[in-house]
Amino acid sequence: MKSDKENNSSRLKYLKKLIKSILGFSPQNLYLYYLAITPRFVEATFNGERISNERLEFLGDAVLDLIVAQYLFHKFPHKDEGFLTEIRSRIVNTENLCKIAKETNLIEIVEKFLPTQHKTPPNNWLGNTLESFIGAIFLDKGYDFCYKFFISLIKDKIIDIEKIISEENNYKSRLLEYCQKNKLNLEFFSEKLQNNNFKIKILINNKLISEYIAPNIKRAEKEASKIAYDKLINKKATIYVL
Amino acid sequence: MKSDKENNSSRLKYLKKLIKSILGFSPQNLYLYYLAITPRFVEATFNGERISNERLEFLGDAVLDLIVAQYLFHKFPHKDEGFLTEIRSRIVNTENLCKIAKETNLIEIVEKFLPTQHKTPPNNWLGNTLESFIGAIFLDKGYDFCYKFFISLIKDKIIDIEKIISEENNYKSRLLEYCQKNKLNLEFFSEKLQNNNFKIKILINNKLISEYIAPNIKRAEKEASKIAYDKLINKKATIYVL
Repeated sequence: MKSDKENNSSRLKYLKKLIKSILGFSPQNLYLYYLAITPRFVEATFNGERISNERLEFLGDAVLDLIVAQYLFHKFPHKDEGFLTEIRSRIVNTENLCKIAKETNLIEIVEKFLPTQHKTPPNNWLGNTLESFIGAIFLDKGYDFCYKFFISLIKDKIIDIEKIISEENNYKSRLLEYCQKNKLNLEFFSEKLQNNNFKIKILINNKLISEYIAPNIKRAEKEASKIAYDKLINKKATIYVL
Repeated sequence: MKSDKENNSSRLKYLKKLIKSILGFSPQNLYLYYLAITPRFVEATFNGERISNERLEFLGDAVLDLIVAQYLFHKFPHKDEGFLTEIRSRIVNTENLCKIAKETNLIEIVEKFLPTQHKTPPNNWLGNTLESFIGAIFLDKGYDFCYKFFISLIKDKIIDIEKIISEENNYKSRLLEYCQKNKLNLEFFSEKLQNNNFKIKILINNKLISEYIAPNIKRAEKEASKIAYDKLINKKATIYVL
């Protein structure tokens, strides 16, 4: 029977081969990539130590934010920072990250290393794993390499940036659509405050999911819808909707 | 009388000299730095075009987030991402950024270029200008140079990271202290909800500044205090407290 060390060594070799053939580059520090594809919901160890990709995800999240900021900064020399912030948040949301992880076949690599028995993965695990993987590339290959790697994905139209920009920015409609599709009961409550502002509360399945105060109802509805929609999409509000 | 172009050219030369003597490095793309030290509250033009550092601030904000993420990732190999996120947010808050801008004498450079007549600067302008400046260094010199530049500030103890980590994380006390110091009227309201959760509302000078729902009062108070405190510190809630 192989020792743990031999097992690890052969797993790393196999991972190197997969990265080279599927993603097209040669990783150096293989352990980083192994860590990156180890989500928290599997109980994995390496040389006897419990490992998970959470710390790399923290790092990769910041790497992605900068890569996309830099890309948009150059692509739109005449747009203000409000536009840049909005478009970035639409690009790096979990939904898109999951899509990239699938379309680049990163998922193939990750799934080959998942143990057959594991807990049910949370909805956003694949997007988080992509973030961790970007964190690993950043540490292994440096920022510039990482920038080129991620931007090539946008250029390959895995993320269609023109489409993202042209998408209607109507969060109320998107929220209604999402709730309809997922059979969630959505309610809006409005309240006129003493200072003439309006407060909108959004309840989903009888739980308060967002609220916003603005000088007019439309603005308050839009902002409250945006918060609610982002929570649902990024699954940050699972506790509320279950 | 000098033409606009001659004026710009001599301003850029002067700026180059200042950066070299005060910050100790040689900038290449001088226009970037000139843009970085042009806050939005001055009505500045360059070659006839209206300019401001807002876009560079957007970029620099992401650069700083990554630099500090990378630094903490290496400095604390055994801490989880919750710790890393918390410490980063304490390091890159506006208060600290203003402090760095002052202690590195970046403020001297900026003030030399401010027109004598300008609108009153918002409280956080100096921190924002530092972010823009970091954005300029990033574009001009690349990520690695920028990382070394900013980390040297931490190592020079302009930011005392050990102190930041050891600081008591009691947001309610900090909030009380801040409000006392700034003569703001602070009120907490608690409400028990039907689902046995507790809702805490924080009002400052009779305006709602934050609220939070949690399964117990202590948690709700802590989180609502944190939101309120961050808003005050980052001056995001100026509209509420004026």
